[in-house]
Amino acid sequence: MANEVLTDYVAAAAAVMQQAQQAFEAYKKVDAHARAVFLQQISAAIEAAREELVAAAHEETHLPLPRLNGEISRTTGQLQLFANLLQEGSWVEAAIDTADDTRTPARPDIRKMLVPMGPVIVFGASNFPFAFSTAGGDTASALAAGCSVVVKAHPAHEKTSQRMFEAIQQAIATCKLPQHLVQHVSDTGIHLAKALVQQELTTAVGFTGSLAGGKAIWRYANERERPIPVFAEMSSINPVVLFPGKLRQQPQQLAQQYAASITLGMGQFCTNPGLLLAIKGEGLNEFLQSLSDEIKRVAPQSMLHEGIYKAWQRNVNTLLEQQDAELLVQSAQEAGAIAPLPVIARVQAQAFIANPVFKEEVFGPFSLVVECADKEELKEVLAQVKGQLTTTLMATEEDLAAHQDIVEIQQSLAGRIIINSAPTGVEVCAAMVHGGPYPATTDARFTSVGSTAIQRWVRPLCYQGFPDALLPDALKNANPLKIWRTVNNQLTNAAL
Amino acid sequence: MANEVLTDYVAAAAAVMQQAQQAFEAYKKVDAHARAVFLQQISAAIEAAREELVAAAHEETHLPLPRLNGEISRTTGQLQLFANLLQEGSWVEAAIDTADDTRTPARPDIRKMLVPMGPVIVFGASNFPFAFSTAGGDTASALAAGCSVVVKAHPAHEKTSQRMFEAIQQAIATCKLPQHLVQHVSDTGIHLAKALVQQELTTAVGFTGSLAGGKAIWRYANERERPIPVFAEMSSINPVVLFPGKLRQQPQQLAQQYAASITLGMGQFCTNPGLLLAIKGEGLNEFLQSLSDEIKRVAPQSMLHEGIYKAWQRNVNTLLEQQDAELLVQSAQEAGAIAPLPVIARVQAQAFIANPVFKEEVFGPFSLVVECADKEELKEVLAQVKGQLTTTLMATEEDLAAHQDIVEIQQSLAGRIIINSAPTGVEVCAAMVHGGPYPATTDARFTSVGSTAIQRWVRPLCYQGFPDALLPDALKNANPLKIWRTVNNQLTNAAL
Repeated sequence: MANEVLTDYVAAAAAVMQQAQQAFEAYKKVDAHARAVFLQQISAAIEAAREELVAAAHEETHLPLPRLNGEISRTTGQLQLFANLLQEGSWVEAAIDTADDTRTPARPDIRKMLVPMGPVIVFGASNFPFAFSTAGGDTASALAAGCSVVVKAHPAHEKTSQRMFEAIQQAIATCKLPQHLVQHVSDTGIHLAKALVQQELTTAVGFTGSLAGGKAIWRYANERERPIPVFAEMSSINPVVLFPGKLRQQPQQLAQQYAASITLGMGQFCTNPGLLLAIKGEGLNEFLQSLSDEIKRVAPQSMLHEGIYKAWQRNVNTLLEQQDAELLVQSAQEAGAIAPLPVIARVQAQAFIANPVFKEEVFGPFSLVVECADKEELKEVLAQVKGQLTTTLMATEEDLAAHQDIVEIQQSLAGRIIINSAPTGVEVCAAMVHGGPYPATTDARFTSVGSTAIQRWVRPLCYQGFPDALLPDALKNANPLKIWRTVNNQLTNAAL
Repeated sequence: MANEVLTDYVAAAAAVMQQAQQAFEAYKKVDAHARAVFLQQISAAIEAAREELVAAAHEETHLPLPRLNGEISRTTGQLQLFANLLQEGSWVEAAIDTADDTRTPARPDIRKMLVPMGPVIVFGASNFPFAFSTAGGDTASALAAGCSVVVKAHPAHEKTSQRMFEAIQQAIATCKLPQHLVQHVSDTGIHLAKALVQQELTTAVGFTGSLAGGKAIWRYANERERPIPVFAEMSSINPVVLFPGKLRQQPQQLAQQYAASITLGMGQFCTNPGLLLAIKGEGLNEFLQSLSDEIKRVAPQSMLHEGIYKAWQRNVNTLLEQQDAELLVQSAQEAGAIAPLPVIARVQAQAFIANPVFKEEVFGPFSLVVECADKEELKEVLAQVKGQLTTTLMATEEDLAAHQDIVEIQQSLAGRIIINSAPTGVEVCAAMVHGGPYPATTDARFTSVGSTAIQRWVRPLCYQGFPDALLPDALKNANPLKIWRTVNNQLTNAAL
């Protein structure tokens, strides 16, 4: 690409970030209750545009209407979660250590709370056109924190993104907030993304997408003179351990549950169970037979776009070409143009251990069964698995009691550990962690789903010796916001 | 350097990290109360070795005995702070969202708490041989979190560091903890540091030191395939704004206070006030006259080591050679071999704005006065200042009322904002922030001092559908630890 074109991207990014900075300067003075109202107004504007949004997303992503309607509800639910968090107010982690004049030297009055970082960039995901995109969790949590936001639309659903942006703009107008509080930019390549991430005024980045995409964004950030945090949620195969007792107890029920989970939304979930680990035996054989029967019956649906379909095909083929890889079953229904036939492959433990290809994500309706000779081999396999968003145990009480060491290993692998359920389905709540060790994310200390997702966009600011009148409300003696605070190491919601 | 020597460093680092990993596997099962006892045992061992430690540090760093004794107390105080935090227990941020079978689909039981990351590397600082070194805040907070620690001794006080490590080893033995829970390594160059940071098993890094050193460590971490968080506290000139009313009110008292703060410990503090900003006028003239009188009387002390002394000399000379830089005053006492005569320089606002040299840290007894024509010029100067650990306002109530815009700008600059005190002196408490935007640190979202310093070493782990008996105590229904938890979005210390 010619230099002058790259210069244009940089100039465009600079202009966008100048506007984002100006909007931030105004928005950071907007109190938490007004920010909550703003989030609710976005939610109301989305609800009003629900039909249009769902229709646009259906056209662009091929996701079924009920799923898209559900995702709209999830998106407005997320906005409401953060509105509630703001109204409750304790999330700012206010801490107060009062002065002590009797000490030598005298101890000053010291208070702290979380404040917004500044303008942030959000990259929408292809697989959730609403909940992880333009007005999704990253945008909602960043606006809740008090940041201004620049959304880079995902090219695979740009019209949907544009329509969603209009809903946000409507809420901005209703609430009389700065016009550029949220901005919306488009580019089919990487140049604008890179330029935005590298702009001096950018203070943090949120990304949901592929490992290659997330690592590129992370690299751009690290080329900066001034480092900024990048939270990229990227890649996960979500290993499921099927324990012997559970397999013997209910192989068919398990097979139904997992056939559904593996092919839910054509497997286009970050939490898709891509790896099934089990110890050989009759229970496993029965389970795999039932799983095969179930998979054969799964009717294919179109994937999000042709690129994702082709990548799935390529990845499945590559995996099946590996030595010792075995095609266990493929759906026996009719494939569509970009609607693939779900695949389950099988490999023995030592082959899995020896070959890195088996450990990579195959995004789409696919799962790899790894058969282990015994518990020790299962542990060897788990030791080879990289960082994950989730890991699951399908187990009876006896299984759990007999495999404490496995449970312990799994805890070190992922951000969320699940017993006797499928990993697909991510609750939006205070206790959720949608994060985990690399390559699941770039920073295991944060989550992109749930109320603590807000922590990605804030920094602590300490006020020393401030007169009460000059302190933010969260730190004033009278505790006018009635929030929980740590006062001289004790949690309290009382006034000082 | 020959390749085989580099290979040796990598092999040495690999062996150290293997041991650290094994120690972590055992230590992560040690409960919080036992970890608290361990921290107290380190504290007791330090207290028992106080005289030896102070003597060793005095010899290696030239810091005066009272200061070193005070620093020992601060170090044991830090260990006690984290022991208290562990005993209280709520720092794990436990959150519980209970199941809801009436919802469609049913909501599972979801619980979350903070868990340790794994083995971490701590780089000790030259200027605090105890409080920011071997058993300092980074080590104390990482051990409190449940991590194993590899300390890289600072070459400027290696004997002190070794003696401190022996105290830690004694506590490890007393508490029957894994031998390699804390390891101590030495190297005068960067090769071992690089190898340690780049080892696969390393999960996080803490660093206190120079901008060059911190950036190097950060770069090594970012060359890794798997990113890890680096918290480096590096560089700060801690701008102080002297407001007109305050200057008129008590110029002499201010001068005394700041002469003492600038030269405290020969200015070898991260929070040394390296930049004094003021609007021209009679108050400023009187202040500078008094400051000059005070500085002339300051008796030099030896700096930490020759390298720091020479860097100070070089940096002061470079700054004074810049166009429009003016030597305001230098101590009129007698210099020692590595004991410099404190310097105050002066520059006009526009010259400061135009020249990046004036914005760099001069580590040691030095401060630069920037004279502004009016408030607008003061704002222009502040806009040029990079991220800081602290910023201070010396102001009357009238000053504050008249300069709200300045106060607001200062809040965006630093991790701590101080009214009417000197920035030197960092309280170890819950509300402290010793952090700030780059180049003060590599990640403004964290602090290296105070109880929340522990947040650098932990990640959230979510448990879904776990039977009560298999949950960690912090998440059990009965709340056996009696900690504060967020249960269905309400903070409570009750049982479920």
